[in-house]
Amino acid sequence: MPVSHVETAGDLVGTHRVLAPAGVLPQAAERLDTRPELWPDEVRIRVERLNLDAASYRQLVEKHQGDGEAVRAEVLAIVRERGKMHNPVTGSGGMLIGTVEEVGPDSTLGLRAGERVATLVSLTLTPLVIEDDLVRWDGQSEQVPAEGYAILFGRSIAASLPDDLPAELGLAVLDVCGAPALTRRVVDGYAQPVVAVIGGAGKSGSLSLAAARRAGAARTIGVVPHESEAAQLRDADLADAVVVVDARDPLALREAVEQAGGPADVTVVCVDVPGCEPGAILATAPGGTIVFFSMATSFSSAALGAEGLAADVEMLIGNGYVPGHAAYALDLLRTDAGVRGLFERRL
Amino acid sequence: MPVSHVETAGDLVGTHRVLAPAGVLPQAAERLDTRPELWPDEVRIRVERLNLDAASYRQLVEKHQGDGEAVRAEVLAIVRERGKMHNPVTGSGGMLIGTVEEVGPDSTLGLRAGERVATLVSLTLTPLVIEDDLVRWDGQSEQVPAEGYAILFGRSIAASLPDDLPAELGLAVLDVCGAPALTRRVVDGYAQPVVAVIGGAGKSGSLSLAAARRAGAARTIGVVPHESEAAQLRDADLADAVVVVDARDPLALREAVEQAGGPADVTVVCVDVPGCEPGAILATAPGGTIVFFSMATSFSSAALGAEGLAADVEMLIGNGYVPGHAAYALDLLRTDAGVRGLFERRL
Repeated sequence: MPVSHVETAGDLVGTHRVLAPAGVLPQAAERLDTRPELWPDEVRIRVERLNLDAASYRQLVEKHQGDGEAVRAEVLAIVRERGKMHNPVTGSGGMLIGTVEEVGPDSTLGLRAGERVATLVSLTLTPLVIEDDLVRWDGQSEQVPAEGYAILFGRSIAASLPDDLPAELGLAVLDVCGAPALTRRVVDGYAQPVVAVIGGAGKSGSLSLAAARRAGAARTIGVVPHESEAAQLRDADLADAVVVVDARDPLALREAVEQAGGPADVTVVCVDVPGCEPGAILATAPGGTIVFFSMATSFSSAALGAEGLAADVEMLIGNGYVPGHAAYALDLLRTDAGVRGLFERRL
Repeated sequence: MPVSHVETAGDLVGTHRVLAPAGVLPQAAERLDTRPELWPDEVRIRVERLNLDAASYRQLVEKHQGDGEAVRAEVLAIVRERGKMHNPVTGSGGMLIGTVEEVGPDSTLGLRAGERVATLVSLTLTPLVIEDDLVRWDGQSEQVPAEGYAILFGRSIAASLPDDLPAELGLAVLDVCGAPALTRRVVDGYAQPVVAVIGGAGKSGSLSLAAARRAGAARTIGVVPHESEAAQLRDADLADAVVVVDARDPLALREAVEQAGGPADVTVVCVDVPGCEPGAILATAPGGTIVFFSMATSFSSAALGAEGLAADVEMLIGNGYVPGHAAYALDLLRTDAGVRGLFERRL
């Protein structure tokens, strides 16, 4: 059902959809214009399912003490007020899957109407309208069945959903596909490094462990908070060593990683709780690299923590975009039974 | 005036000084133990002058609308309550200069009693007691004459103050010495890159411009917010191009850097205002690197911003510690008249 196009040209990055404040990009906006009419280079997606960012979902659940009804109401309120699912506390969003409904005449994303896709840009900058009050969601899961539409800008990313995987599985993998791609790139920069992944049994963590091993890590260490996750990770055979420790306790984390064959040359932080920066710094060898993927990372805690510990480590802000990331993550899932098993357990 | 030593061994990173909460490192602590007695590997410094972090000082001035008396009272209150100068809003601190008062028998920092030093670890993790109510400070400058003492831990950093420079000048340089050292390292990784420094006329910015040129940048671009700073930067001859633009306006920043010879292969963000992440991302070429030195950087804004713009850029958290950073920054100041001129203007 095509609707009339907007006549004026938009900006590739979507500033024409920003209602307030003036001059910022959609991600920094308080409120977006969600009109269904497309600017010439835009694409409209009929939404099927949202996948909330883990840190965002956890914050909402904790705020409402697990009351799914209240979580649902707050997600609806955020989307209605902001025109996007942008958690104001965590600053994070998530992504979505759906079907391409209409493609503007000047779009260069290569999408066709009717194609099932996952958006690989954050919900924090994606104009979104929910039309079903999320009646099919009980607020008890990060995955949210939803009816509505979303808009992609000229410069944006969406991946075709694989035919050979259930939609939930594809969505879960694509949601974190930047992590294994960046881990691979960083590990490639070292000769036979020791790689520690904090939160190794999670989605981005298990993919990062698999990527590190495939990229030639001499030893991989999976760090998890509970014995139950340790057992899952051991079953999945994704790490050469699995250690149970609270990553928020810096001295304990350093000790545990050292006992397991560290310090690490590459440390990947994938847990969605605050306060893991000092431990990650202490667990990393001089000349090493830390990749922070968790949206709960504090910039100042990392910067001042490393300085305060006289730690000569490189610290990367985990960029969710690396060329080829979607295909690489899907390939890891398809070819590594351990990764697939962990993902299926979490759905 | 030696005081009795504490008998038990401390931890290299100072956890024995953490009063609350339990188990964290001093930087993450709410409150530190400021007793003057030294653990065996500690050093006590007689304080002469604090240098507040720029983002922290700006926040305090804005909160109190420029009322120096109120700024002074709040700094005193923070230090009294927390046992360290750790701004709870910005999460940042600053550094200090003083004279080594006593060296614990097991200290490995190589300091001698009577030596004038600058501490190169953040005030956010340095136990500090102010004894003169900061009576010599009017709250109108980041540099704070102060009477009192501070403690360095076993694993810490202090640099001997150079004899050939005024103390204020040495302190101002050492405060930001991580920036040029890391800029040099990043620029070294590219062949003849274009380097843009956002906030190029400031302390860390001017040193970063000088470091980039010396490290072989093909072209350096200094970005400043006002024509007055542009004139200063042109006089200093530190950049091949100087552009005036509000770095919080992402499209304007991208345009300005492109006009000046960009996009940049290396972008260094040195301004102490929030909201510069999207513009820095847009101004950087694919495959480029952004170094965030500003304590006003938002982790989620950078991470999600790059993803949302499908920007294949590496983003570094500016680590204030790089081996040799103090000597390198002092050398830049001594040998580059432009850098020295800008610093002297700001004192």
